[in-house]
Amino acid sequence: MGLFGRRYPKSPYPHLYQRNDDGLNGTSRSDVVASSGSMIVVSNRLPFVLEKNKEGNLCRKASAGGLVTAVAPVVVNCKGLWVGWPGIHLEDPNQPIPESDPNDITPTAGLKSDKVVSVRIDPQIFDSYYNGCCNATFWPLFHSMPDRATFNGEHWRAYITANKEFANCTLTALRKLKNTENAGDVPLIWIHDYHLMLAANWIRQAAEDENISCKLGFFLHIPFPPWDIFRLFPWSDEILQGMLGCDMIGFHITDYCLNFVDCCQRNLGCRVDRKNLLVEHGGRTVRVRPLPIGIPFERFVELAEKAPKVLSTTQKIILGVDRLDYTKGLVNRLLAFEKLLEKHPEHKENVSLLQIAVPSRTDVKEYQELKEEMDQLVGRINGRFTTPNWSPIRYIYGCVSQNDLAAFYRDSAVGLVTPLRDGMNLVAKEFVACQINTPPGVLIVSPFAGAGETMHEALICNPYEIDGAAEAIHRALTMPDDERILRMNYLRRREKINDVNYWTRSFLAAMGSLITQEDHDEIGAVRMPAVTLEDFDDYLAKYIGNTHKLALLLDYDGTLAPIAPHPDLAVIPTETKNILQRLSNISDVTIAVISGRNVNNVKDMVGIEGITYAGSHGLEILHPDGSKFVHPMPRQYQGKVGELLKKLQEQVCKDGAWVENKGALLTFHFRETPAHLREPLTSVAKKLIIEAGFRAEDAHCAIEAKPPVEWNKGRASIYILRTAFGVDWSERIRIIYAGDDTTDEDAMQALKGMAATFRVTSSHITKTYAERRLPSTDSVLTMLRWVERHLNRRKPNKDATSYRRNSRSKQGAVQMEMSYLRSEVGDSN
Amino acid sequence: MGLFGRRYPKSPYPHLYQRNDDGLNGTSRSDVVASSGSMIVVSNRLPFVLEKNKEGNLCRKASAGGLVTAVAPVVVNCKGLWVGWPGIHLEDPNQPIPESDPNDITPTAGLKSDKVVSVRIDPQIFDSYYNGCCNATFWPLFHSMPDRATFNGEHWRAYITANKEFANCTLTALRKLKNTENAGDVPLIWIHDYHLMLAANWIRQAAEDENISCKLGFFLHIPFPPWDIFRLFPWSDEILQGMLGCDMIGFHITDYCLNFVDCCQRNLGCRVDRKNLLVEHGGRTVRVRPLPIGIPFERFVELAEKAPKVLSTTQKIILGVDRLDYTKGLVNRLLAFEKLLEKHPEHKENVSLLQIAVPSRTDVKEYQELKEEMDQLVGRINGRFTTPNWSPIRYIYGCVSQNDLAAFYRDSAVGLVTPLRDGMNLVAKEFVACQINTPPGVLIVSPFAGAGETMHEALICNPYEIDGAAEAIHRALTMPDDERILRMNYLRRREKINDVNYWTRSFLAAMGSLITQEDHDEIGAVRMPAVTLEDFDDYLAKYIGNTHKLALLLDYDGTLAPIAPHPDLAVIPTETKNILQRLSNISDVTIAVISGRNVNNVKDMVGIEGITYAGSHGLEILHPDGSKFVHPMPRQYQGKVGELLKKLQEQVCKDGAWVENKGALLTFHFRETPAHLREPLTSVAKKLIIEAGFRAEDAHCAIEAKPPVEWNKGRASIYILRTAFGVDWSERIRIIYAGDDTTDEDAMQALKGMAATFRVTSSHITKTYAERRLPSTDSVLTMLRWVERHLNRRKPNKDATSYRRNSRSKQGAVQMEMSYLRSEVGDSN
Repeated sequence: MGLFGRRYPKSPYPHLYQRNDDGLNGTSRSDVVASSGSMIVVSNRLPFVLEKNKEGNLCRKASAGGLVTAVAPVVVNCKGLWVGWPGIHLEDPNQPIPESDPNDITPTAGLKSDKVVSVRIDPQIFDSYYNGCCNATFWPLFHSMPDRATFNGEHWRAYITANKEFANCTLTALRKLKNTENAGDVPLIWIHDYHLMLAANWIRQAAEDENISCKLGFFLHIPFPPWDIFRLFPWSDEILQGMLGCDMIGFHITDYCLNFVDCCQRNLGCRVDRKNLLVEHGGRTVRVRPLPIGIPFERFVELAEKAPKVLSTTQKIILGVDRLDYTKGLVNRLLAFEKLLEKHPEHKENVSLLQIAVPSRTDVKEYQELKEEMDQLVGRINGRFTTPNWSPIRYIYGCVSQNDLAAFYRDSAVGLVTPLRDGMNLVAKEFVACQINTPPGVLIVSPFAGAGETMHEALICNPYEIDGAAEAIHRALTMPDDERILRMNYLRRREKINDVNYWTRSFLAAMGSLITQEDHDEIGAVRMPAVTLEDFDDYLAKYIGNTHKLALLLDYDGTLAPIAPHPDLAVIPTETKNILQRLSNISDVTIAVISGRNVNNVKDMVGIEGITYAGSHGLEILHPDGSKFVHPMPRQYQGKVGELLKKLQEQVCKDGAWVENKGALLTFHFRETPAHLREPLTSVAKKLIIEAGFRAEDAHCAIEAKPPVEWNKGRASIYILRTAFGVDWSERIRIIYAGDDTTDEDAMQALKGMAATFRVTSSHITKTYAERRLPSTDSVLTMLRWVERHLNRRKPNKDATSYRRNSRSKQGAVQMEMSYLRSEVGDSN
Repeated sequence: MGLFGRRYPKSPYPHLYQRNDDGLNGTSRSDVVASSGSMIVVSNRLPFVLEKNKEGNLCRKASAGGLVTAVAPVVVNCKGLWVGWPGIHLEDPNQPIPESDPNDITPTAGLKSDKVVSVRIDPQIFDSYYNGCCNATFWPLFHSMPDRATFNGEHWRAYITANKEFANCTLTALRKLKNTENAGDVPLIWIHDYHLMLAANWIRQAAEDENISCKLGFFLHIPFPPWDIFRLFPWSDEILQGMLGCDMIGFHITDYCLNFVDCCQRNLGCRVDRKNLLVEHGGRTVRVRPLPIGIPFERFVELAEKAPKVLSTTQKIILGVDRLDYTKGLVNRLLAFEKLLEKHPEHKENVSLLQIAVPSRTDVKEYQELKEEMDQLVGRINGRFTTPNWSPIRYIYGCVSQNDLAAFYRDSAVGLVTPLRDGMNLVAKEFVACQINTPPGVLIVSPFAGAGETMHEALICNPYEIDGAAEAIHRALTMPDDERILRMNYLRRREKINDVNYWTRSFLAAMGSLITQEDHDEIGAVRMPAVTLEDFDDYLAKYIGNTHKLALLLDYDGTLAPIAPHPDLAVIPTETKNILQRLSNISDVTIAVISGRNVNNVKDMVGIEGITYAGSHGLEILHPDGSKFVHPMPRQYQGKVGELLKKLQEQVCKDGAWVENKGALLTFHFRETPAHLREPLTSVAKKLIIEAGFRAEDAHCAIEAKPPVEWNKGRASIYILRTAFGVDWSERIRIIYAGDDTTDEDAMQALKGMAATFRVTSSHITKTYAERRLPSTDSVLTMLRWVERHLNRRKPNKDATSYRRNSRSKQGAVQMEMSYLRSEVGDSN
């Protein structure tokens, strides 16, 4: 059976899933990594595929790539489970997974059927998820080839569906574990790769709802691109949030980690720590770690020691081994080899390029075209240089056995690993592992592979520069023995130590799941410190500057006051109240509290005079001078509020649920209703609200029944600002908006680009228009402290005394006409 | 004449060079920016093109884009010059530039012919430079579309040639200025855009050689991509060095600045200051500044006030104006508009998309295909939705007059500026300038344009997300008036203040050429501080760690000792000697000084016992125990050294030149020879050296005559390390190499990936294999201080006492065999 089995022709990294084991098992017992708890591995593919034999029965075909070899024993040892797609679409969902063949000695043999959760996905959805979103979008985008990426809403929705299904199956596995002898453990869920970047979200959510503890870890096997590329993906926020559903996220190299941390900061507005690679999200600290994957080094050494000689040539062999993929730079490599023969004819008849190209995604047009280009190019170059006894390129389009491959690795003078972009590239590692001859060969690596970043003693060569690549090959062919030995010595030592078991250990250590203290010491800081004043320096100081007036628009519940079981209990902390009081006395500051509560109620709760209060999401506004704006209610709805209140009280006010009458709207609260009773109650409540002609909007454990007017916290915010500052008010005003509710999103959207906006959230799935996230009401207080300090520090503003308080008295009939820019401008933004 | 003149169909940004002026001139006298000195502007195109009239005589056709309008008066005022290509290939190089037409009232009319330097380039080279390197490589690459970029060595060489020609013409202009009444000034040379990223190098070099002072500034009008994209370009180092030939480099937005600074740090190993945007290169501090370009705002307001109404429709107009280029996202835009009509049918018959597509690069296949795709798409969508009285898309493939354009801008409800990537995009700015109606329209901008970064009050919409873009258009069409007014108010104020004159002023201020103190205050720190110990923390602390032994390999002249007029005068500073002495007493440290000098001479100059000395670039090595290695000289060359010495002394030792006899090689010094006499002497010397069978290698104001042996500082370094540390020495050794000479590059290349390497250089054109650059011998001393402090700080190493000094006594017959990795490994890299 070929080394690069064609059974999974579509997997993008042959090393992880495409290998077959020919009987060798480098992972001796002593190498097995011990996890302190049980583990669930979630990957797109199971560690084996199911096939139908001649009798039509399902049987397993084992895989034994480095990952499977390293991870499977850990899963088996800790009586863990593996969740994945079995490689075929099973018609019968209840069809049992067969046990492994009794003669199977691969690491997955120990994985009993009851430890396997097979994911079943509608074939059409699967195609859209796998060939669409995974391989036509994420594959090229994450390899920084944005022009090759397609962005398709349908593929994205299929990706969500598939990830949900993987999450459901993982939850099944998690519940299974809970009912076994491991029940006391906190299981570790290890999710793999770009196919499953969303799954963690639903797993975390459901596990929390069901009160099952678990730790979630993620490893990305491909590159993570820079922010400027990643952000092209229209749903990039969702991807980041999905990954941040985990406790720890691993990448191959530090650059990918930093790219990810940058994206979290810039896309989601998370607080991050670039030095310690931490991201704060949903009130949790997520660790990001570079964990370069390794290979089963000793297994390759053994193979190289035993493999019979295959190459019967006196020529030096330059070796290339790649899946036939556009990221691999095969065309550039052939051109570089041609250039070598052209510029250094002394190599003619003395070297050959042995290129093994493993067929891949052969049903995709792009890959077919690449194949044709390769065929043509090989033919042309061979036609140009071939002599009666020598052909420059030996091009094998297909698979080779593991023994043959080890012999090629061992007996080649140059290993040519020159992808245009590659997460890591294990061929480079396998090549050095097999280099047991003296003197050894030379490895050439592209700087655009993770291997180029970590295996820096290799010759590094830019595959785009054909001349330069030719020179690198020439240098490799003519390198003095001592340099050759030295470089290979360094490279082999690193790979021997940092093999795939080391990688697994490192991952578990980074998850805090391994007992070894030594590994723990490497981790460094693991929690973001509490929000400090300095956290606001970068963002706010630039924005507010030294001369601007400031408008503070603040939500109440969950923003100024912590959420409480009942609205009456949500009291504003004294310190928050005091700082608001002091700020309200500064002439440069205008404060408005904008709440879903009844306007008089919110005023009572805050209890500060001389500021603006907006209630019922802005439908009622109480100005500092006591005047009041009430958004006109459509006449026909004026009576309906009472009717709806009555209906709701009669039909759904039970099991802890109750209705709050806010005058212009009603709020149905179900915070105290037990989780499993909520769904039926809320669906009835929504139905009643909609039937009454109102809008039903989701809020914090509540549903708001609003009259259908085009008015919300956004409109109200702009109204308040216009009222406070009059015509042309935008000139010297800076705005800060903070809120924790979905209704605050209306304001954040309306003010987007015109205000500093903070969303208070402790949920990892919150999507927001806000530019920054804050984990708690405490951090809002810190922000207010920052504002106070900043205002106290800045020079006295000569304009401050002339501040037009009078404009606040305007109400209702704000003049919407604005004369454009006729006034003098002195603000240079 | 059309607004988007087709006379320069290949220019990538119509706003700068493609505009014709229809007579209006918004730049009144009072707006003209005054420069304190004279100025030379260098751009690919002159501010006018030359055309042949019916009589076959050359005449000017004026351009009046924003840039020309703003910059031309400054050039005219300060009696400056403009260097550029005239738009046609002139057959006769001496053909005079015609004066402007007497009726010409555009800003360029004041530019007399003697103030214009017309660049002449061979048409084939020009094609390869312009269509090849500029538009097929840099254009897509800098727009982060690497897959569209071609990397071609021939195009690159044409780019170098063309840049040299621009540099030569600029030097001509500079010499012209020197001979005029401005002679006392320090002229400012302002180079524009990605066509001319190398020119500054040669200008600076030649100006220094000729003792002409000048300041060099550069502005890039397109994006500057992230490091991870930029580094794909095989000659990326040269581009960075070319730009760093300037004193100040401007980009549109801070992100581009940071990308550039990152590239300088990671590609060139420069010291940088990300906070103050400074880069140290060649001993100079180069300033990097975000200078977002503006438009002639008032000119557009005037146009909008005067332009007759063109659109006679009751429908709301959504306006798109773009050059037909793949970066502009036109296909995505049409699909978004289609989606709008599909999802929000209420807009049918109520809105129309007016898309103006200006023909561009119509001879390039990629652009022809885009045109076909657009034609087809417009047809399909119109076919789908058109009713008897309404057609959804009005697609104008061609140019429109400036008046019509202003009317479109003014009368549109939505401005749709949704490029996939764009340096700035001035359509967005022109749109808001012309929005003088009440209530105003809404601007939608892509986040991938510079305008999206700076005009944040616009609606920001990802063009790749068709659904989202449709929703953004819907939101714009239905936005409440107050939000609409507020957003447009902010946008217009910023553009009014930050207009193109503000931009010119800011550029001059950043160059330090403007008298306004106010502008000066904005600049912030302008010089990198001297190299400090902390500068080495990041790079060296990680590498050296706490347990490794350290090998210091150091060149002498220009590295340890400052360069002097005669080798005997190049004395090692006492402090450097003392620190080396102290370091040599630490058992964990091995020191070797590797020089081109005779080995006994370098030992005398350094004067420290117990360290290794290598002379004659490593051909002779003196070990600490007094034993000596001499690389075998080919027998036939042993007598030839004397013969060659004699010949050189007889024929070229005059005018200050002399020959140093180093035993194994000879050095011909011409440091004291006057510049204009060097060339003939050195070419004769080289000839003699080569005739004698030796190699002639360039060094610091010297030529080395070396016997043709395959031995250099790289081979010698590895030999020294092997001798000092024996078999398997790489295990716990960290290596630092520092040198200032081209001969040190052999060592830096041989040790690449295995050592920390520093190139000492004060030249801005040095290309190096080293990972870091240091500006001077002083900074080498600081590095040695860092090493001493680091070693003193780390815990005592228990291995230190058992350090095998005995291995140093090995010499000559180093065993090259290495047994792989049989020893225990405890180093986790």
